[in-house]
Amino acid sequence: MSGPHSDRAAAEAFLAELRSVSRAVISQYFRQSFAIDNKADDSPVTIADRAAEAALRQSISAAFPGHAIMGEEQGGHVDEGLSWIIDPIDGTRSFITGRPLFGTLIGIVDGGIPVSGLIDMPAINETYRTEDGRSLFESAAGTVAIRSRSCDRLEDAHIATTSPDAFTAEGWQAFTSVKDKCASSVYGGDCYNYALLAAGHLDIVIEHQLGAYDMMALVPILQNAGACVTDWQGAPITINSDGSLLACATRALHQDALKCLHSSQAQH
Amino acid sequence: MSGPHSDRAAAEAFLAELRSVSRAVISQYFRQSFAIDNKADDSPVTIADRAAEAALRQSISAAFPGHAIMGEEQGGHVDEGLSWIIDPIDGTRSFITGRPLFGTLIGIVDGGIPVSGLIDMPAINETYRTEDGRSLFESAAGTVAIRSRSCDRLEDAHIATTSPDAFTAEGWQAFTSVKDKCASSVYGGDCYNYALLAAGHLDIVIEHQLGAYDMMALVPILQNAGACVTDWQGAPITINSDGSLLACATRALHQDALKCLHSSQAQH
Repeated sequence: MSGPHSDRAAAEAFLAELRSVSRAVISQYFRQSFAIDNKADDSPVTIADRAAEAALRQSISAAFPGHAIMGEEQGGHVDEGLSWIIDPIDGTRSFITGRPLFGTLIGIVDGGIPVSGLIDMPAINETYRTEDGRSLFESAAGTVAIRSRSCDRLEDAHIATTSPDAFTAEGWQAFTSVKDKCASSVYGGDCYNYALLAAGHLDIVIEHQLGAYDMMALVPILQNAGACVTDWQGAPITINSDGSLLACATRALHQDALKCLHSSQAQH
Repeated sequence: MSGPHSDRAAAEAFLAELRSVSRAVISQYFRQSFAIDNKADDSPVTIADRAAEAALRQSISAAFPGHAIMGEEQGGHVDEGLSWIIDPIDGTRSFITGRPLFGTLIGIVDGGIPVSGLIDMPAINETYRTEDGRSLFESAAGTVAIRSRSCDRLEDAHIATTSPDAFTAEGWQAFTSVKDKCASSVYGGDCYNYALLAAGHLDIVIEHQLGAYDMMALVPILQNAGACVTDWQGAPITINSDGSLLACATRALHQDALKCLHSSQAQH
């Protein structure tokens, strides 16, 4: 096999191998002392973030020398072909406070559209990734295909978001307008919330002001698992999205949540 | 050895054994389907909560037939002697959404004063407990004594709380008055935040409207590790506390955080 399709399949197959590259770096630093810098946007970054991204870039460049790479720490751009998007440690605030719910995100986009993704949770040994149109969950117990839940109604839904501090005031009101209709809410979690949604444990995740690094890996994992994910306007997520994200277990749930977001925003 | 002191030591030694009792029950239910009921206070409860508490009560009663037992699901009272306080699953919202950061809390109080405690995290195989005046952390890597961090200043502190929905409006403003001075904030976590504080990863945890079930196990683990824990008035936590809790890595940090809480409350 050759041509664009086989190139995409080869890149997706390589995702699973990259897990060992980032884990080898990150495991040296978790719960150890290290310096914490604050970036321009006041988010923390550690030597673990930088070293993990450097190691991943090196592995990807060696395997796919023609592919563009964009990473949270070193920057870069995607191009019109297959490109890689890396967030070496999503959930740095969890990482620096010893909480094991941080993840490595690696997404592959084709012409700016997310097509393959990996969410790796090194400290709890769980991996969520795409393969041949499916989404897989790998743990010590083995590998299984995952599906989102069949939850159709807000009143039955479990909703999650990472932090009230990550919202604008209007954004928080929009989130709250959905959350107040749901069965229960949990906070914290970062990328892991999307993994739990894809695996059928959570029903809605709402965030905004996200970077492309935060989003590209999640989208194909959610879509392959049957979940519905768009921005807050209902448009597909691409490399140029505005950073708002609404992920729901079903299309019906997504429609109802989108209505709430819109009526909250219309009031401002 | 006999008398009250040996009785207390025997009870504390028994804490470590109870871990296997609750784990055997809880592991049957995590990430499986089960019914969720809502209690009078609208918090969720599952068969796992009820079955784990029943199993723990049975084990404690068999070993210490004279001791009073109070549990979140079955109720009960403490008496003037050694009594046991059980929260079978702290973080039920995490438990029902597949997130592994829920814990089993077992506290021992003597005359209403917390003297020994266990925080067991079954899904990530970590245990935090008191033993002979120390606090221990047990994981697959072994058992080590833990100490809180030497963080003295709010501007260097990492703060955590479980959920904005768990606060009154005034309580949330009080929390925010401290949080806004800190280096970073994380949400979610339930009892695990206190374990991470005792182990030197987090510096401040602030919550209110807690039950005695939530608090009794945490206090001795924090104190033995060198942390400073009181209610929002600066008073020691006992079985009769008002449910507010301020835990800090050092006494200096505690004083500064308490001042913030008080000036926020004085404005209302």
